[in-house]
Amino acid sequence: MQTKRVYFIDGKFKNTPISNIEDRGLFFADSIYEVIRALHGIPIFLEEHLERLFFGLRELKIQSPYTKEEYRDIIEKSLKKLKASDALVYIQVTRGKEPRSHLPRKNTKPTVIIISSKYRPLSPKLKKNGVSLILYPDVRWGRCDIKTTMLLPNVLAKIEARERGFFDAVFFKNGYLTESTSSSFFAVIGGKIFTHPLTHDILPSITRQAVIKICKELGIQVVEDPIKIESIKDLDGAFLAGTTYDILPINAIEDIKIPLSAITTKIQWEYERFLLKQTEIHINRKAKH
Amino acid sequence: MQTKRVYFIDGKFKNTPISNIEDRGLFFADSIYEVIRALHGIPIFLEEHLERLFFGLRELKIQSPYTKEEYRDIIEKSLKKLKASDALVYIQVTRGKEPRSHLPRKNTKPTVIIISSKYRPLSPKLKKNGVSLILYPDVRWGRCDIKTTMLLPNVLAKIEARERGFFDAVFFKNGYLTESTSSSFFAVIGGKIFTHPLTHDILPSITRQAVIKICKELGIQVVEDPIKIESIKDLDGAFLAGTTYDILPINAIEDIKIPLSAITTKIQWEYERFLLKQTEIHINRKAKH
Repeated sequence: MQTKRVYFIDGKFKNTPISNIEDRGLFFADSIYEVIRALHGIPIFLEEHLERLFFGLRELKIQSPYTKEEYRDIIEKSLKKLKASDALVYIQVTRGKEPRSHLPRKNTKPTVIIISSKYRPLSPKLKKNGVSLILYPDVRWGRCDIKTTMLLPNVLAKIEARERGFFDAVFFKNGYLTESTSSSFFAVIGGKIFTHPLTHDILPSITRQAVIKICKELGIQVVEDPIKIESIKDLDGAFLAGTTYDILPINAIEDIKIPLSAITTKIQWEYERFLLKQTEIHINRKAKH
Repeated sequence: MQTKRVYFIDGKFKNTPISNIEDRGLFFADSIYEVIRALHGIPIFLEEHLERLFFGLRELKIQSPYTKEEYRDIIEKSLKKLKASDALVYIQVTRGKEPRSHLPRKNTKPTVIIISSKYRPLSPKLKKNGVSLILYPDVRWGRCDIKTTMLLPNVLAKIEARERGFFDAVFFKNGYLTESTSSSFFAVIGGKIFTHPLTHDILPSITRQAVIKICKELGIQVVEDPIKIESIKDLDGAFLAGTTYDILPINAIEDIKIPLSAITTKIQWEYERFLLKQTEIHINRKAKH
């Protein structure tokens, strides 16, 4: 059975994702993307996602064909058409459609693709017991702070993890853990939370920022220092954080078991409350208008 | 005026490049490609290109939907339809069409796209006087030996080069020159030719191999050692080599002028003869059948 999806392609809503494929996104990974979660029909952290989308466009020197207000409007219409309370909205903006040549033409109009689909949460069992990760060399490019579609190494890491009977992978670079294939990595040591600092090596994850905020509210100290591979055996807990995973405990990295920390469970719980609060804030804001 | 192009998409020849865009090639750069030159209607180094295509598919664990013989057949038909004596055949193979998820589904059929177009050679003036390059940090991923569509850094380097009034860029990594955005880099020093060794940092370029072969035939020593940035000022000559550029002299890197070496001109000349010889070999082989 095919999941229902709502497509917005080439400036209009379509029933099928058919378009001109002679696109720089396909030829050169010359594009950026966002994945936005919607709860009760309300896109969460929408402003933050659009802010990061526009940061990526600036870094790649792509002129957005839409304003933030127009993206908001298309997303809202997509969610209405989808009729799913919990949804994922995928936005991809490419440099546009033109015959293949490294050097882009002037005045080519960027391509915007927005695909909305029902959100399928991970099983409660996984969320409770946690998942296992392999270590994978971080062979990604030098600008992982831009959310581009340069994702082949992430795909290869995920394939290898599943082939070896693990759930996902965590990348390591120069002996330090950076992040996972589609989520941020956090460790718990002695009551403190550790995560990689914001450099070109990791994505400025919106969920990561939310976790840091929650920790501050809970009085848990957050240290933006990366974890050494050798320190994995000493962790009191670890978890992944991202738009599709929420907070997901890690129970093992390779053959090293990692305990489930009460702090992880606490943050997991507070994050769910935090998400729900975002929808309330949105509803209240709408009511005032 | 739009250049005529012949499209082979989803298993058939089409007049327009329209297809399902819900493809792992577009979402994840989960794909590889080749660009093949045809001279007098004959694809040059076809066996070498197909060999590299299949190497890439193996590295990415993609099962090719076609045999080499089938690719040869489609390419031959494409060139007949194009009716251009000198052509470029672009082949892209992606892991296939499916809803977006890092982990690929089992049994998704790979997508094969073949686009043939007329070859437009660089101006004789450029080929004679050479081109200027900027230095660009090699921020590409760790497996540049696989010809994947992870090409955004190549695009960004090319854009910056043109914005700064240069023709192209040469990447540097750890103080050494690796290669250009779509061609190999060669230097001439004291009668010898220097080029980066075959590692994960550069593409095993087919033109590079041809240049090495030509040099051996000419009695010119080839040293597979990379050039240091500090050594640029001491070069007696330098050139790029690739399928679309052939042999292209470099006259400057950043503000350092590079002389036109008689050795470059010699190799340039021999390479053109070498290409023509390939078509003759092909014609003779056909005649025997």
